Amino acid sequence: MQQVDQLLIGGTVLTMNEALDVYEPGAVAVQDDHIVAVGSMNGITAAYEASETVDCTGQIIMPGIVNGHTHLSMALMRGLSDDLRLDVWLMGYIMPAERAFVDEEFVYLGAKLAAAELIMCGTTSFADMYYYEAEVARAAAEVGLRGICSQTILKFPAPDAESYEQSMAYAENFIQEWKGHPLIIPAIAPHAPYTNTDDMLQQCAEIAKKYDVPLHIHVSETRQEVEDSRDNYGMPPVPRIKKLGILDHKCLCAHCVHVDSGEIRTLRNHGAGVLHNPTSNLKLASGIAPIQEMLEHGVNVAIATDGSASNNDLDMFTEIHLAALLAKVATNDPTAVPAKQALLMATRIGAQACHIGDITGSLEAGKRADIIIIDIRNVHNTPTYRHDPDSVYAQVVYAAKSTDVKHVMCNGQWLMRDRQLLTINLDELLERSQAIANRIDDFIREYSSNIMSKLISVASFQQQESFEIQLKARFNETERIEVLLNHDDVSIVKHSHYRQYDTYFLFNDPDDARVRYREDDFIGENGEVTGVRSRLTYTLPTKEREFDKAILLSHSQFYAPADRPLRFYREYFKAAEEREIHKERLRWQILYKGVQFYINLDTILHPESKNKYLEVKSRTWSLSDAEYKASLATEIISTILNIDEQDRVAFEYVDSATSSPHPSRPETT
Amino acid sequence: MQQVDQLLIGGTVLTMNEALDVYEPGAVAVQDDHIVAVGSMNGITAAYEASETVDCTGQIIMPGIVNGHTHLSMALMRGLSDDLRLDVWLMGYIMPAERAFVDEEFVYLGAKLAAAELIMCGTTSFADMYYYEAEVARAAAEVGLRGICSQTILKFPAPDAESYEQSMAYAENFIQEWKGHPLIIPAIAPHAPYTNTDDMLQQCAEIAKKYDVPLHIHVSETRQEVEDSRDNYGMPPVPRIKKLGILDHKCLCAHCVHVDSGEIRTLRNHGAGVLHNPTSNLKLASGIAPIQEMLEHGVNVAIATDGSASNNDLDMFTEIHLAALLAKVATNDPTAVPAKQALLMATRIGAQACHIGDITGSLEAGKRADIIIIDIRNVHNTPTYRHDPDSVYAQVVYAAKSTDVKHVMCNGQWLMRDRQLLTINLDELLERSQAIANRIDDFIREYSSNIMSKLISVASFQQQESFEIQLKARFNETERIEVLLNHDDVSIVKHSHYRQYDTYFLFNDPDDARVRYREDDFIGENGEVTGVRSRLTYTLPTKEREFDKAILLSHSQFYAPADRPLRFYREYFKAAEEREIHKERLRWQILYKGVQFYINLDTILHPESKNKYLEVKSRTWSLSDAEYKASLATEIISTILNIDEQDRVAFEYVDSATSSPHPSRPETT
Repeated sequence: MQQVDQLLIGGTVLTMNEALDVYEPGAVAVQDDHIVAVGSMNGITAAYEASETVDCTGQIIMPGIVNGHTHLSMALMRGLSDDLRLDVWLMGYIMPAERAFVDEEFVYLGAKLAAAELIMCGTTSFADMYYYEAEVARAAAEVGLRGICSQTILKFPAPDAESYEQSMAYAENFIQEWKGHPLIIPAIAPHAPYTNTDDMLQQCAEIAKKYDVPLHIHVSETRQEVEDSRDNYGMPPVPRIKKLGILDHKCLCAHCVHVDSGEIRTLRNHGAGVLHNPTSNLKLASGIAPIQEMLEHGVNVAIATDGSASNNDLDMFTEIHLAALLAKVATNDPTAVPAKQALLMATRIGAQACHIGDITGSLEAGKRADIIIIDIRNVHNTPTYRHDPDSVYAQVVYAAKSTDVKHVMCNGQWLMRDRQLLTINLDELLERSQAIANRIDDFIREYSSNIMSKLISVASFQQQESFEIQLKARFNETERIEVLLNHDDVSIVKHSHYRQYDTYFLFNDPDDARVRYREDDFIGENGEVTGVRSRLTYTLPTKEREFDKAILLSHSQFYAPADRPLRFYREYFKAAEEREIHKERLRWQILYKGVQFYINLDTILHPESKNKYLEVKSRTWSLSDAEYKASLATEIISTILNIDEQDRVAFEYVDSATSSPHPSRPETT
Repeated sequence: MQQVDQLLIGGTVLTMNEALDVYEPGAVAVQDDHIVAVGSMNGITAAYEASETVDCTGQIIMPGIVNGHTHLSMALMRGLSDDLRLDVWLMGYIMPAERAFVDEEFVYLGAKLAAAELIMCGTTSFADMYYYEAEVARAAAEVGLRGICSQTILKFPAPDAESYEQSMAYAENFIQEWKGHPLIIPAIAPHAPYTNTDDMLQQCAEIAKKYDVPLHIHVSETRQEVEDSRDNYGMPPVPRIKKLGILDHKCLCAHCVHVDSGEIRTLRNHGAGVLHNPTSNLKLASGIAPIQEMLEHGVNVAIATDGSASNNDLDMFTEIHLAALLAKVATNDPTAVPAKQALLMATRIGAQACHIGDITGSLEAGKRADIIIIDIRNVHNTPTYRHDPDSVYAQVVYAAKSTDVKHVMCNGQWLMRDRQLLTINLDELLERSQAIANRIDDFIREYSSNIMSKLISVASFQQQESFEIQLKARFNETERIEVLLNHDDVSIVKHSHYRQYDTYFLFNDPDDARVRYREDDFIGENGEVTGVRSRLTYTLPTKEREFDKAILLSHSQFYAPADRPLRFYREYFKAAEEREIHKERLRWQILYKGVQFYINLDTILHPESKNKYLEVKSRTWSLSDAEYKASLATEIISTILNIDEQDRVAFEYVDSATSSPHPSRPETT
């Protein structure tokens, strides 16, 4: 008799291995962190004896469930807002709350709250993506769950990083610190193709390769994302990230709702895992991912909950159920994704999709002891049919509930017995979580009365890139602009001429947010107005820093078409203050030494000013890029245009304007 | 202080009334079977004192949930078979099991098992449709649940009735017996437009009106049903049932997946309730019902589970959740069917859809005390947000689980306290249910090896109408057929001529089922073959009875196109015996005194026979109709064609044939 730590005996054992062996009654022998043997009860009990034996008669013994994509810490924002348009939800609630509350403590506490829910729902492995990911890792390791913890990289400032470089440094440090942990697999997560530049995506791919860690990314979640990618890059997201090397190394692609057969083949050929989020994709009206086709092509598809803020729970039983159901209606075929297949996606195939198929996802000797026991001796699981060997899978997928999970073991450690959590002080956790929620509740109550909330309810906003290098100067000898335009290193891409009528709404707002209503009158060659466009822009306070004599601006800006007359917005916003700026602008989009710049030559019409101004601007996304562009902008201003240092200015026009009850101007129709 | 029986105090009270009043903390006062008062805790406790007070602090008090459409007794067939094509599921498993097992005891036991689940999931009212519906009523009344119990009417023989008249008699008797019961509302349920004749539907509508009871019917569940209705009646199901009066009186329409805007308006104008079954419609790949449009038009839409055989549970929390989610993806709008609306559909609006809105569905003084209490002090309901008054609905719909339901009261009686059922002996119920399931398991194991199971896996079957009046006679003076065809009371609708090559497969089958492979060669005017058609027909033993000298046949027949050669089926079925019949058939479809008959004049080619035969046939659906048609058929045979009584025969050709290893015949390609 071989001595082991644990014997689980008497239940129906679903191994979920390649052969899909089922033992009824079966048994599992566990030693330390791994499974020693799986088989029939008689076979196992004849060969092994254990210090602890758990009787699982009438119960199902199966692998711990793999949740392929989540944002654990968002458990603290469960139910913060629901049934809203994506932009309203994100910009009106989630992002303001994240800006104000997400710090290391928040991330740790939220991950722990989520961990408690994962365990109670029978999940033993997860793939997370969030900020301060080291705190997620710390919470999971303490609780005893297996996690792929992916640090988010964004081209916008994030709660844990003011710049891209900062989050890359955090990520690299995090990976070095946690790599090799028995439970935690650190990973890098460029948030999405549309929130990262090509360079950033390539660098993330290099990090993944350098440290041999997974790369976790959102891909083709919405139709809009795919259309924008076609517009901006001439191709959908999947070929773009393929080209940038993202798919080359242990890639986890969340969502993939809008992918075609060619893209599915690309994902398969690169061994990328797809993480399918049924509830989230329904709730945000993103669509139904073509998982049946993916599975037919041999893609490893995991099932996932996404974050609790858009779900609103981490119950994988709901997701498995829904994955099986949605595939049927999406393909018009009730035999699509049968229960067995759905349960495989939540166990072995899901683990493979997350690139941890070698250690978990099935009950096999040598794999880690990630095991759950489901009690089916209750009303909603009665009766049990067994004429079809697949009935037991149907019972788990279509009838069983997460609350039927009785015991949970991860890495050989019991995390829950008889529905009592063993590694978490639940009462304290719930209390602390509610305390943070109460503070967020108060914050949102105040915030909801504010300007952003009013804005998003009347317009469809989009976030704009938000790092910009800028140089500005008084420039009254406007004829000298020709020196620049005729310069050998300059080529003109586009020239335009317009008059801009800006109305700024200012508020007694704690965020110091501003709304600009801008009417652009496009001017033709003979001075006639050839077109009019009105836009609303919402700007949070701009962070500036001097940068090689230029200024680096980072601002969160959101813009939307203004489809109502100015008067409407004036009455609607009831701003504390209004300011008007009218100007005539000549604009050139140029390439200087191959780098794109915008040159604005502005004549201020209102409030009257004797000065004209020159702006040199360029978009950027990192400190090193900004440094290079600032040096080029300085060349333009100082070397080429010979503008005096003392003519440099650093104000925004609106800040020089005074409060004004609307001067006469063309009213928009 | 007014004395009442019960006070429920301290919870968040969701009244779901017209004003959507929420009291936090609130209280409800209950006397006998009804609610006396609902309001703030302070107000209620100041005015009422009770013999029992239940502290609901930190919990949600709301109306008991209404499950708008189910087949309770099918709980015993939960998980019997899953992930199958509808025809395979229905004809391979459900119908054979129903034929073999559904009796009064089965229906009673199944309803009780389902009732236990309903209560544990917070449901207090349901609308059921099944056979032996008095047994469902008996189980629900014993357990203490409120039910609309609808007796099924079909044009096919059913487990509880061999003929339509028998089930109408059962229904009328059931309605008389149960009408006025405090919990049970008896109702009539013509199963569906396609399983009932116009006459039957009209009679059901009359019964509903005569007794002032609801009428419950499946409508437009599948696209195929709508297409067939257009083919057969020149219109979709909704206008057809409208024309027949079905919508005139308290109608409950289950499914309505495939209805257009005009039909939605028709349903609204007639005050018909729609019963939406999200899981069932997904699982059987029927589609997603346009409930957002229905709600916009003011149709009362209830949410429902359908039967456990196609769900596989009776968990309304799953359905409410899914109703809210599916509407979003179906309309591409994440604001569609918000949580509040979904919960209304499961309470007040659902009750209105079931025409019981006057007594239940909201917490209001005077309504019946149908109340549930949900405990949200757990991980998956933490944290709670309250900045938005609708957050509490989102919590119930998106986060809470049915297992959070703590107490359930129906009609003033506690059915569950602290998740313990008070009116059901659960252990005994589960044991008896599993015992029946074990018997069905054995039956299906045997059945699965049989012919029907083999058939359905290779062809798409449809059920055929199954009552037929038939007269048959030797008829060798074939020229006398002209007397009939030229008769004043006869008009010829259609004439055809073909040769039929029938191969019967016979089995050592307990059901005595037969499969016929028939090749029809259509013969043109010059004797040439103008077309060939091959069909498979599966026939269960035919019940015959002598009927005014004719024969009334009732048989369950299923037919399908045979798209493979005869040889394939021969090898596939490995029948115990094969019989061949070849015949030449002249067929006339005629109207005699306005009634449709088929006249077949058959020359048997194989096995050789010296006799020719005449068949007079007509479809029927009830005993009274059969009686009339039999008298007309007798006139045709005896009076017009003057066929001698002794020439009448009562065998089927196949029964006169002997076992034959295939004679030479044209092989199908």
